[in-house]
Amino acid sequence: MPTLVMKFGGTSVATLDRIRRAAKRVGREVANGYDVIVIVSAMSGKTNELVGWVEETSPLFDAREYDAVVSSGEQVTAGLMALTLQEMDVPARSWAGWQVPLKTNSAHASARIEEIPTDNINAKFAEGMKVAVVAGFQGISPEGRITTLGRGGSDTTAVAFAASFGADRCDIYTDVDGVYTTDPRITSKARKLDKIAFEEMLELASLGAKVLQTRSVELAMRYKVRLRVLSSFEDNDDNAGTLVCSEEDIMESNVVAGVAFSRDEAKMTLLSVADRPGIAAAIFGPLADASVNVDMIVQNISEDGRTDMTFSLPVNQIARAEKAMDEAKASGEINFAELVTDADVAKISVVGIGMRSHAGVASQMFKALRDEGINIKVITTSEIKISVLIDRKYMELAVQALHDTFGLEKAA
Amino acid sequence: MPTLVMKFGGTSVATLDRIRRAAKRVGREVANGYDVIVIVSAMSGKTNELVGWVEETSPLFDAREYDAVVSSGEQVTAGLMALTLQEMDVPARSWAGWQVPLKTNSAHASARIEEIPTDNINAKFAEGMKVAVVAGFQGISPEGRITTLGRGGSDTTAVAFAASFGADRCDIYTDVDGVYTTDPRITSKARKLDKIAFEEMLELASLGAKVLQTRSVELAMRYKVRLRVLSSFEDNDDNAGTLVCSEEDIMESNVVAGVAFSRDEAKMTLLSVADRPGIAAAIFGPLADASVNVDMIVQNISEDGRTDMTFSLPVNQIARAEKAMDEAKASGEINFAELVTDADVAKISVVGIGMRSHAGVASQMFKALRDEGINIKVITTSEIKISVLIDRKYMELAVQALHDTFGLEKAA
Repeated sequence: MPTLVMKFGGTSVATLDRIRRAAKRVGREVANGYDVIVIVSAMSGKTNELVGWVEETSPLFDAREYDAVVSSGEQVTAGLMALTLQEMDVPARSWAGWQVPLKTNSAHASARIEEIPTDNINAKFAEGMKVAVVAGFQGISPEGRITTLGRGGSDTTAVAFAASFGADRCDIYTDVDGVYTTDPRITSKARKLDKIAFEEMLELASLGAKVLQTRSVELAMRYKVRLRVLSSFEDNDDNAGTLVCSEEDIMESNVVAGVAFSRDEAKMTLLSVADRPGIAAAIFGPLADASVNVDMIVQNISEDGRTDMTFSLPVNQIARAEKAMDEAKASGEINFAELVTDADVAKISVVGIGMRSHAGVASQMFKALRDEGINIKVITTSEIKISVLIDRKYMELAVQALHDTFGLEKAA
Repeated sequence: MPTLVMKFGGTSVATLDRIRRAAKRVGREVANGYDVIVIVSAMSGKTNELVGWVEETSPLFDAREYDAVVSSGEQVTAGLMALTLQEMDVPARSWAGWQVPLKTNSAHASARIEEIPTDNINAKFAEGMKVAVVAGFQGISPEGRITTLGRGGSDTTAVAFAASFGADRCDIYTDVDGVYTTDPRITSKARKLDKIAFEEMLELASLGAKVLQTRSVELAMRYKVRLRVLSSFEDNDDNAGTLVCSEEDIMESNVVAGVAFSRDEAKMTLLSVADRPGIAAAIFGPLADASVNVDMIVQNISEDGRTDMTFSLPVNQIARAEKAMDEAKASGEINFAELVTDADVAKISVVGIGMRSHAGVASQMFKALRDEGINIKVITTSEIKISVLIDRKYMELAVQALHDTFGLEKAA
């Protein structure tokens, strides 16, 4: 039998009614001839409640006990989902992570999956069971203790199961109906993508299009798991969502797949830094130590042995970053004339694997922004992405202009 | 190190504050030099919530999934208790039932404990851990699935751990401060017992003094586990509760230990039953099949080959019993002239191991009731108990009179 993995997030299993609704979808895939592995999250709100109790009990908690407590939510949903399927005469049973067993390392609260043996579940499929319902987000450490995989861990669980069982597809049911060319709240021309390449999805996910957890996309890309994102709230037939897949599975696509943005960015410039070997390390070491997430970095050309160093960071980390720089200056590690902070910038990125083979995307982007009178403060590029920092007040305008100029409202 | 088992029920761990309070008691016993095994229930209300979800999802639920769902509540409390102890600098960790592993049979939702290996937990005690917090009410089946022990399962878990680890004592923390000579709501003269014998506790428990689950007392008796019942809400030093122990540990006691009662009883009489061998089986077989819990049974002497058969049952099972008897009559299995039901009776019992060696307890009991003008409808006796059925309206009066006549307000 071909195998399918279906994952339902917290809002999709928030009530018994929604669990029933999800179970109906599972039943349809069983009727389609699949053996199905269902990965469930905790009912929405449950994990936060449990985390709240742990943090109130012990601010610097023992992560092993944290895992024992918070993993219970998924166990409940898994049992309820199995019961719901049984009521629909679909042979099903639940598995906790440790029963599979989904083996992880011992990094409690953010464990990495090491192995998912398939024999237990496949033995039950062979006996006629049609659905294995597995509690997401959790596994078991070499010491026999419950581990959890950290945020987005249920997506990662689903992809890992799809890889281990050689599933035809891994369907992620969520509260959006797919991946869009950009946020539909910014422009009504935003279009749902039928397909998107793993690499594009990775860039979009890490840029704040929070449909899929980055880690699950990385895993899917490595094991070539066809990943589909679709809504658990739409029942019509054209709810096909977006397929995240290998480049080869996409016949034709736009050069640019989407426009991503990140609102709460800040820009920091160290003016007149003494330019010497190791200066970058001297600057970004203390920032990393202070847990500042530096994103874009630009160094001006050097003049008279001095240069300007500019970088971007989340706006709520400005104070931490300024403190780190001032201390580094005081200790003599670095030497700069002035630290200039701009707290009102946003990052806009165009992403597309087609950019690899199409020249001129950058110039088309810069021209579109210029035509709107938008000044570009910082530019960085990768093979499939061009990002710019601009004044935050122009963010929506820039997204609309870029969406238009690359014709994203129409499919390729 | 001597070992102590401490069990906290749902009301004793209902909030983070109460868990802290319970943890302080545990900390005190650690300071007293004990290695402590703490057995916890789910926070009060949680198990009912989970059971409600299961029953709503699937009225005739798969008990294996029921167990997977409802066992999660204890797992949460165990983790939170371990964290609370760690915050108080008491080295502690949690165990789910399957981690111990507490091995049970496969009778899901009402599993029997088969074995509790001590090596895992003892290894941690040897490393310096002072408290093992174990999720009560649950274990693991030979098939590797989670089982639960049924109602009162956490008391049973505690006693089983005390037996396996050879604990000095098993302390059951609950919302009452001990076992009383009778319900203090019936007479203010009711006195808390310092000690009570297992056999007496069993009779009192099964008669509705719901302090300890019958099954846990049976287990304690078999393995000679000293069981103490005490309040988790009183912090003063004379909160010593009641020790349930072997007869030999009680130097001197009253002939009668307590007066128990059961309010919602009914009496049913089959008049003029044809008396033949097998007639009792013919009557009580159909009642058992209809899940009627018959308690006391009295058969009158036979006259002209016919007799009257009287039995007691819970008042809410009258309809079921009448239906079963009418059907048995219609099918010709039994033959009786009339079925007379009295729905307004109560059962009063005096219990005491001293009755074995003291004659005259029954006559003293009957005299006390006669002096109050209370008519006795049915009598049954065992070695350490005399029970009577009386009109329900005299129940309180009877309890007070018996409490007085046996001098229970004073210790021996």
